Amino acid sequence: MTKKIESHQNKILKWVKGLSLKKNRDKEGVFIAEGLRFVSEIPEEWEVQLFMVSEDFAKEEELGCYEERAQTYVVSDELFALVSDTENPQGILAVCKKQEEFDETIWKKEAPFFILAEELNDPGNLGTLIRTADAAGVDGIFLSKGSVDVYNGKVLRATMGSIFHVPIFQNVSVQEIASKMKEQRISLFAAHLKGEKYPYDLPLTKGCGFLIGNEARGLSDEAASLCDCWVKIPMPGKAESLNASMAAGLLMYEVVRQRLK
Amino acid sequence: MTKKIESHQNKILKWVKGLSLKKNRDKEGVFIAEGLRFVSEIPEEWEVQLFMVSEDFAKEEELGCYEERAQTYVVSDELFALVSDTENPQGILAVCKKQEEFDETIWKKEAPFFILAEELNDPGNLGTLIRTADAAGVDGIFLSKGSVDVYNGKVLRATMGSIFHVPIFQNVSVQEIASKMKEQRISLFAAHLKGEKYPYDLPLTKGCGFLIGNEARGLSDEAASLCDCWVKIPMPGKAESLNASMAAGLLMYEVVRQRLK
Repeated sequence: MTKKIESHQNKILKWVKGLSLKKNRDKEGVFIAEGLRFVSEIPEEWEVQLFMVSEDFAKEEELGCYEERAQTYVVSDELFALVSDTENPQGILAVCKKQEEFDETIWKKEAPFFILAEELNDPGNLGTLIRTADAAGVDGIFLSKGSVDVYNGKVLRATMGSIFHVPIFQNVSVQEIASKMKEQRISLFAAHLKGEKYPYDLPLTKGCGFLIGNEARGLSDEAASLCDCWVKIPMPGKAESLNASMAAGLLMYEVVRQRLK
Repeated sequence: MTKKIESHQNKILKWVKGLSLKKNRDKEGVFIAEGLRFVSEIPEEWEVQLFMVSEDFAKEEELGCYEERAQTYVVSDELFALVSDTENPQGILAVCKKQEEFDETIWKKEAPFFILAEELNDPGNLGTLIRTADAAGVDGIFLSKGSVDVYNGKVLRATMGSIFHVPIFQNVSVQEIASKMKEQRISLFAAHLKGEKYPYDLPLTKGCGFLIGNEARGLSDEAASLCDCWVKIPMPGKAESLNASMAAGLLMYEVVRQRLK
């Protein structure tokens, strides 16, 4: 069954609109997946709180699959534009539950493979990192306090749905995660301009993690000191550094290469 | 010697402002490098037509090094904001000559290494591709007709100065460049979801090039048919594809890895 919302003052509409703010997403433990492709990526077992669609969308698409799953609200195109995060809305969004519980079983995997990022700030970078981590088969991504929110619209769009595939843990303490990795005998490597080893010489078929620094400042000295080894990505050309998500991607794919054999 | 510009109607100011449009950059054969870091990356031998700085900038920085090199104009902060492409201008820009002549000597290098992109549309992707190509030591980047303009402000910012290091040729015909590569015995590979070989199994110490497709549509069938071999980037995880610049970066770095030995 669908319900119609016709007023700007409607409580549900205002609540969905409020989710563009991080503090409201945090309070409610939900986020917005917008657009047909993104919504179609929501796994069956994932909890959806509600769907909201525009009248134009409702005219052209069957709503049955949405109604079965969660309460579905139809709003005018004008009202939909108010809750949309994009310039040309496709007319569909889902309010999804965050997966916030820390899953201790990720430590028990055989040869797990993690990313730990310190204060990654750029939404596009974080989104690309998550998408690449998903392709590379990363077992978990840890984001330190001070990183951009994973549930920010720009980050979500750049993930292309990978947000549903890779466990992501926000607001972690880099020190705590590094200790936990040490305890589990997972080697922690950092991309660092002063690195001594090339990624190709690291033992990556065993449990491993990579520590990635902030786009402008790089890794803090404190975080860098927690690593087993600093890694140098070769740069035979003239550029002095790589984009943070590119550096992370190159390291993750070295794990993929070594584990293919 | 510096000159002051005080009027909105000044011809030079209007000319610089006009360079935000591609058609004017094309007509004049110039582009704008904005910001202190970007301007500091301009190589000594590169032709600069003029510098423009804000009054605030002129108060805090020595202008001698700019004046020596090209006519330098000082404008009010308000006028500078009109020609700036950023929200928080640093108060300096340079109008630089494009390097447009095709340099035939790039074909004569030993084991050259090229990127050929078909209709790459996203400015951030193209900028990241150029920066990564610069780090990896790529000898030249060819961009097909229909690609985003390299001299667009967003592309330039994402290159982080690499625009000055890597030869880039725009508006090329994919077919012509592919033929030229064949003639020079340079192998052409394409990242393709239907690829048969992993990058790790390609002979990349010899002359080689990679063909990269559009972000949404991938490579056209016509372009894909010009390649010696389709390459499959392994994706052991759940993502169905990679971001275009990430895919390009992974391929370029496989060349770096193979040539390190």
